[in-house]
Amino acid sequence: MTLTGNMLIGQQAITGNREAIRAINPATGTVLEPAYLGGGSEHVEQACTLAQEAFDSFRETSLETRATFLETIAAEIEALGDELIDRAVSESGLPRPRIVGERARTCQQLRTFARTVRAGEWLDVRVDNALPERQPLPRADLRQRQVPLGPVAVFGASNFPLAFSVAGGDTASALAAGCSVVVKAHSAHPGTSELVGHAIARAVKESNLPEGVFSLLFGSGREVGVALVSDPRIKAVGFTGSRSGGMALCKVAAARPEPIPVYAEMSSINPVLLFPAALQARGESLAQGFVASLTQGAGQFCTNPGLVIGHQGPALDRFISTAARLVQQSPAQTMLTPGIFQAYEAGIGSLQELNSAQEAAAGLRGETPNQCQAHLFVTRAGDFLADPALQAEVFGAAALVVQCADDEEIRQVLEHLEGQLTITLQLDEADLDSARAMLATLERKAGRLLVNGWPTGVEVCDAMVHGGPFPATSDTRTTSVGTAAIQRFLRPVCYQDFPDSLLPTALKHANPLHLRRLLDGHREVLENA
Amino acid sequence: MTLTGNMLIGQQAITGNREAIRAINPATGTVLEPAYLGGGSEHVEQACTLAQEAFDSFRETSLETRATFLETIAAEIEALGDELIDRAVSESGLPRPRIVGERARTCQQLRTFARTVRAGEWLDVRVDNALPERQPLPRADLRQRQVPLGPVAVFGASNFPLAFSVAGGDTASALAAGCSVVVKAHSAHPGTSELVGHAIARAVKESNLPEGVFSLLFGSGREVGVALVSDPRIKAVGFTGSRSGGMALCKVAAARPEPIPVYAEMSSINPVLLFPAALQARGESLAQGFVASLTQGAGQFCTNPGLVIGHQGPALDRFISTAARLVQQSPAQTMLTPGIFQAYEAGIGSLQELNSAQEAAAGLRGETPNQCQAHLFVTRAGDFLADPALQAEVFGAAALVVQCADDEEIRQVLEHLEGQLTITLQLDEADLDSARAMLATLERKAGRLLVNGWPTGVEVCDAMVHGGPFPATSDTRTTSVGTAAIQRFLRPVCYQDFPDSLLPTALKHANPLHLRRLLDGHREVLENA
Repeated sequence: MTLTGNMLIGQQAITGNREAIRAINPATGTVLEPAYLGGGSEHVEQACTLAQEAFDSFRETSLETRATFLETIAAEIEALGDELIDRAVSESGLPRPRIVGERARTCQQLRTFARTVRAGEWLDVRVDNALPERQPLPRADLRQRQVPLGPVAVFGASNFPLAFSVAGGDTASALAAGCSVVVKAHSAHPGTSELVGHAIARAVKESNLPEGVFSLLFGSGREVGVALVSDPRIKAVGFTGSRSGGMALCKVAAARPEPIPVYAEMSSINPVLLFPAALQARGESLAQGFVASLTQGAGQFCTNPGLVIGHQGPALDRFISTAARLVQQSPAQTMLTPGIFQAYEAGIGSLQELNSAQEAAAGLRGETPNQCQAHLFVTRAGDFLADPALQAEVFGAAALVVQCADDEEIRQVLEHLEGQLTITLQLDEADLDSARAMLATLERKAGRLLVNGWPTGVEVCDAMVHGGPFPATSDTRTTSVGTAAIQRFLRPVCYQDFPDSLLPTALKHANPLHLRRLLDGHREVLENA
Repeated sequence: MTLTGNMLIGQQAITGNREAIRAINPATGTVLEPAYLGGGSEHVEQACTLAQEAFDSFRETSLETRATFLETIAAEIEALGDELIDRAVSESGLPRPRIVGERARTCQQLRTFARTVRAGEWLDVRVDNALPERQPLPRADLRQRQVPLGPVAVFGASNFPLAFSVAGGDTASALAAGCSVVVKAHSAHPGTSELVGHAIARAVKESNLPEGVFSLLFGSGREVGVALVSDPRIKAVGFTGSRSGGMALCKVAAARPEPIPVYAEMSSINPVLLFPAALQARGESLAQGFVASLTQGAGQFCTNPGLVIGHQGPALDRFISTAARLVQQSPAQTMLTPGIFQAYEAGIGSLQELNSAQEAAAGLRGETPNQCQAHLFVTRAGDFLADPALQAEVFGAAALVVQCADDEEIRQVLEHLEGQLTITLQLDEADLDSARAMLATLERKAGRLLVNGWPTGVEVCDAMVHGGPFPATSDTRTTSVGTAAIQRFLRPVCYQDFPDSLLPTALKHANPLHLRRLLDGHREVLENA
């Protein structure tokens, strides 16, 4: 298709009337056509009106209809073919294999949510049958299911132009729950967003769903985002991005006459703990694995390992010197946008000025625009504990090694950590007792704990948690990756003494959806399940 | 036991040093002994330090230990015998049978959460086994469970001195989840709170739990509450009370460096829809049922039916005249506190001054202090839609009937409603189609929908939802009554490639807790379950 530069409000292509957004190829600095004129509050109003009109019918579509709709989106994205890959590569500077892989992940994610929708466990059906003879008072017939919250606003992320943008995890999980969605595209990849937006709009049409199920807006400043989060019809917000951006949306949402939940995935430095036996036995290979994870995708993953914690001594020194050598050999890599590159450079500059940390290595310099040079810094536990600046995320391939005198200093460093998406434990058999003693603290600090792996790479599955205590996310009770993400967009409703004909299908006495209900205090076992 | 007027910080009785709280018997105006000196921020600090110290070990107690602990609290409350009943009657002005029933409900609630803890479904265990051969990338072993959020602050409610105060629903669900709890007692019933607090403290000791699992603070002003919600160790808040009180706590929680969830159950007028056929066939008995629900407990239930919606005409006129006659015959009833009585009188005064509503009836006048006179008002849909004051909760036995010209006006009134805990439908067979057409709207507006019942009386069971969209609650995703309330105090953690010996018991490969896990995308069927 020819890119038009238009927004999508339901099935209508609408030209904005605010400042134009122009994508830039960060690898060359070239400005890409077409221009995307930004929308304004009047476009938010239109999109939210449609989203609200669509909601009551979309949310009561059958599980099969909704699952097929998600699968149709995946098929429509795949049908975009090389045009989508080419444009996403141009707009992100990411290598082609990465974008091809991200497309696969995006489509797998949609299909995984289709499976989740069909299984229906998310409805969490609970039935307490009437007890008319109970003393001193009879019990009514009480039935509970989950219903979707309402229209959801989704903000595209810069670092996953496919998997966490227009048809990414937030959109997939909100649609799966039965929420209509209004996406504000990330300004770094408007062309990619338009292509994917049209794929979703086509799926809406093919599935005979009301057009307001999905809209796509552009906007360069704060107007569209603030209007969207403020709109009374929007009932939840999904966001992946910076801490300042996420907190700004949280403030807008909390100040509404009716506050709403914001699921903002914001900031994490993903500590890696090197336990003594592991460090002693395989410091070299740990350094290799670490630098590979650190520099993957120019360090632009939410789960990038930005902090290494270990006992000071010869083994940690060897780890540092190996990692330093590898960092020095690391080629520079194009970052996603000029803005992200500038923020990275500024963050590195601030670290270099601190007395509390020393630079151990810098990677190869870039020769084309916006190239990120990897950096490794080293500090001591005392300095880390004293200087909050050392805990700030520098988005990109930068990491800090914290040298601790003993277990007690490690414990202090762990307790001092802000909330994290991940914490990684590198350990051998002899380290197990020591790790076990820290587990309670680690569980309080992170959403995902890994043993002998690296945090980059987030599996889309039932058991994944891509979340964690603040400021990793604004809502530690949830995950933004994996099938449990559907729960972010649901609320329970109880039906008391409803005649069967008035009950929603999921709650009818005959259990036509064959759900494993919680029935009078016991989980049902189904014969044909 | 002799009441001491002391707070409980862990196992220690501590005398406050701020302004004294003195309970008043609202039925007589008598001041009750002893005085309860208020605590200050230093006591909050002590209680939160203990709560944090207790948390890591309490949260990893076995399911059996925690369930037995909840049952021990129930037994200790029952062991308080008549002393508890007498004091609660004196402090609340509530009739003795009501308090006896509330004690039974409180203990049943604790025992129901014990059953829930033992069943372990709340752990929501998800296992995705490793797929080392998968292409293009292998999958790690990923396991998820729910862990408790951390220490929880609970604010006692005025209207349930037992079931929603010191050992009430919020405390029971937070302890069930594995959170330590710091309660701020409601100043209306400090003696009841001290008695129940000691029962919990005894159960803590008998169960060999760390003392910081439970503390009880008093405070007459904002100091204790604000310090508690602001304390960095507190990770969630449970509150039942006024809209202004709940919103104040939400603001404090949102302004923390690390914002935390507040579960505030605040304000609901619990609309009752009278459908035409039902109104025609049984208007008299509907009026009787309505006035009985309206005046129960002096109207001091969160689910008190404060709004009636019906088609104008002779049938509704008959309903109104019958209800008016019954209201006029209603004896006055003692309210919980002088403050609540004064607020009720002020609310009625405001309604009487409005031109948009007419008073249809007032109940019998009180002859002793703080007695609530029931009131019935009538308005037209147009006036209701135009005047937001008509939707404000007047806590007590006051209700408003909204006369609607047609289905369209009823639809407009429903859409205009704020979020509610309950909406009741009075309908007969001939009304079903009409009710079905409104269901989507009703589900968006309330947490519980009832057919042909009355909203007062909230069953403690699996399927109950005592929640609803704002301002009924501050978090529509949850319930404060029923076993699903445990989910308010949990967050997911994912364990990647953990050796079995390091995994928490719930996640070990052999499934020693016999949990019905979500295993590689399918729900496990257990042989001996």
